[in-house]
Amino acid sequence: MILSGTVIADSDNVIDDGSVVVEGSRIEAVGRRDELVSAYPNHEERTYDILLPGLVGGHIHSVQSLGRGIADDSELLDWLFDYILPMEASLSAEEMEVAAKLGYLELIESGTTTCIDHLSVNHADRAFEAAGEIGIRGLLGKVLMDRRSPNGLAEETDDALAETERLIRKYHGSFDDRIRYAVTPRFAVSCSEECLRGARELADAYDGVRIHTHASENRSEIETVEDDTGMRNIHWLDEVGLTGDDVVLAHCVWTDESEREVLAETGTHVTHCPSSNMKLASGIAPVVDYLDRGINVALGSDGPPCNNTLDPFTEMRQGSLLQKVDRLDPVAAPAKVLFDMATINGANAAGFDDLGALREGWRADIIGIDTGVTRATPLHDPLSHLVFGAHGDDVVFTMVDGTVLMDDGEVTTVDADAVRERAADVGLSLEEYRQEARKVKPNP
Amino acid sequence: MILSGTVIADSDNVIDDGSVVVEGSRIEAVGRRDELVSAYPNHEERTYDILLPGLVGGHIHSVQSLGRGIADDSELLDWLFDYILPMEASLSAEEMEVAAKLGYLELIESGTTTCIDHLSVNHADRAFEAAGEIGIRGLLGKVLMDRRSPNGLAEETDDALAETERLIRKYHGSFDDRIRYAVTPRFAVSCSEECLRGARELADAYDGVRIHTHASENRSEIETVEDDTGMRNIHWLDEVGLTGDDVVLAHCVWTDESEREVLAETGTHVTHCPSSNMKLASGIAPVVDYLDRGINVALGSDGPPCNNTLDPFTEMRQGSLLQKVDRLDPVAAPAKVLFDMATINGANAAGFDDLGALREGWRADIIGIDTGVTRATPLHDPLSHLVFGAHGDDVVFTMVDGTVLMDDGEVTTVDADAVRERAADVGLSLEEYRQEARKVKPNP
Repeated sequence: MILSGTVIADSDNVIDDGSVVVEGSRIEAVGRRDELVSAYPNHEERTYDILLPGLVGGHIHSVQSLGRGIADDSELLDWLFDYILPMEASLSAEEMEVAAKLGYLELIESGTTTCIDHLSVNHADRAFEAAGEIGIRGLLGKVLMDRRSPNGLAEETDDALAETERLIRKYHGSFDDRIRYAVTPRFAVSCSEECLRGARELADAYDGVRIHTHASENRSEIETVEDDTGMRNIHWLDEVGLTGDDVVLAHCVWTDESEREVLAETGTHVTHCPSSNMKLASGIAPVVDYLDRGINVALGSDGPPCNNTLDPFTEMRQGSLLQKVDRLDPVAAPAKVLFDMATINGANAAGFDDLGALREGWRADIIGIDTGVTRATPLHDPLSHLVFGAHGDDVVFTMVDGTVLMDDGEVTTVDADAVRERAADVGLSLEEYRQEARKVKPNP
Repeated sequence: MILSGTVIADSDNVIDDGSVVVEGSRIEAVGRRDELVSAYPNHEERTYDILLPGLVGGHIHSVQSLGRGIADDSELLDWLFDYILPMEASLSAEEMEVAAKLGYLELIESGTTTCIDHLSVNHADRAFEAAGEIGIRGLLGKVLMDRRSPNGLAEETDDALAETERLIRKYHGSFDDRIRYAVTPRFAVSCSEECLRGARELADAYDGVRIHTHASENRSEIETVEDDTGMRNIHWLDEVGLTGDDVVLAHCVWTDESEREVLAETGTHVTHCPSSNMKLASGIAPVVDYLDRGINVALGSDGPPCNNTLDPFTEMRQGSLLQKVDRLDPVAAPAKVLFDMATINGANAAGFDDLGALREGWRADIIGIDTGVTRATPLHDPLSHLVFGAHGDDVVFTMVDGTVLMDDGEVTTVDADAVRERAADVGLSLEEYRQEARKVKPNP
């Protein structure tokens, strides 16, 4: 297949009248359209306004999708303990599948082709299967929680680690290696030292398995960790092995100088989630400072209950605007930086060295954008438009590993209407579940 | 006509299975669908997922639409003096009409039915005519600039005021009173005392004419005014008559305690433009504090070069998220507050006492929203969804004064494709104009 249009191969390479040739699951060639159409005369050609690498969601909660809008404008602890955790605890296996499908559907529709996905404690198999079926690329992980967690989510440490190992053996490298495993402790507050050290051991035992957790998102979290351990959170994570170039830490809003040095020295990846940090009033992460230190910063939508969308374009825009106003510097975090965070930096965080740009021999994860709308007129700079002006709604074509997942705006691998209908039914019944689940007190 | 669906009459009144009956330019009735369909059996009925009052853009630069994306990631003074002002100065009358039409088209498509619109110095007639033709409601005003302004925009004070008076006589109350006049000094920096006092005199001389200007948007602006006058900016505006309940001040990011007292005591309206304040790195306006003081705060998209869209839903979301993160309070600026800012507060700022909610006898400015998309699933709370989850893209129906301006997503009053095509042509030629215009130095 030949895909033609304005090709943004990466943030430094924009080809106005370009093409990408796809053979199997790989990119065969990228260049000028006139040359490639001649060189590959028998390939079907499709034309889009803008073609770019599929975006990488560096921190996603797909299975929280059923809780979209369920707890807007709530106090943080109410949000977590009265809404989100009870919701996660209440979901049956079938409901977890519905939740995951809804999440992956929104991701595919709005241009995310790879997600680093924080599942829940239970029924993780259903999310792995849903991701495999829909065709998204992802690092998924069952959540580990063995203390300070409500009944229904809290597990014995050994059981949690054993279940993780079962899932690694079953799913890591599955679906033609589109699906990989990330060991996923929820955060230091709800994981014992044994659990955190066990996560590291599992990641070390299986080639390519990575680690994904929340870190230093809000002030009460880092105070709790300091009370528990006598250490700042990033130092504690470093102590138990949860730093390094196979580790993705979501948020990192509240870090001090010495913690930032640890992140830089260990090559630990950070995922910035600007909309979530704003809506939950977590704070403003020092993204420009991290990048200046050489820390790899990816971009994430977090989950629908704290966003309320998984649209990666919203996060690119938000990430730039939030740094500009925080630093009172209109030149801070320009379009190129946010585009890199959502593409190549995300691929780097996810552990792929042949993803996140359109290059010969690299994986064929590609999206196509429509710019025929009023809010894209006139279009002075395609890259800048993607960051500041585009929406997930503009994505009309999504390809992962050379397979078309969405064509003319219609997802081809699942019945999108059926997913939405079932999700609406289950989602609207969650209020009842939540009332029931709230009766269960946290297990100290 | 009967419009049926979930009716958000105002932020306190949501009718799940409701209807709005429209007769001529007014709302005849609002209530339960079953009752109204029986009471008005001969009316055509149309059904939408959510119906709400048309949104009010409390500070808009429609004619900057051709500069969408032209100066992303620029230093502020470069942005203004190298891009925006030269662009405005360069536009011919026909190009100004194209610019205005593009702006009004985007507004109508994305749910804004009333705009308080800061035009440019020249060719204002073309924007008034475009607004009249497209059918939007608005307070428009030719810009006044009589010092510190580039050639091509700077005018003699008397000429600027005389031209304003001509436009007031021609357009104030025109197009069935959909179009009204707001006297529009650019800001204190580029207007002499005589000009500012003249603006007040004109507003006083014509019933219903209001005043609209920028105020205290950034720190260099307020420093300049203080150097010029020895006063803080709001005190200076108060001194020359530009406060009061007929005055709309855009931004008000940098105000001290005594200035906020003036705003509250004089009943001056403030328009908050969160995306613009973020992108231009102006700062974070103290919106919650203003509202606590009883100041009427409206919401605005500003112009495409500093946003890059005129989508009012983006501003509702942004306004809430920005206050939450700035105050580190997830309960701050909840959905209800932002919805009010974008509706009834905006109508109040624009000087209408029968606009901004769906009520019997009020003006029939109504929009319809589609929620059949993945990112609106599930939909737990319609009001909250509008603020945190909806886009302008979701608007499928727009009515002003009982006239349908957009139906099934298609604008009926202009040829939208033709507007976009012409705007793309003109917009992409602006780079040349800009190079030429930059050669013209500011007139001190």
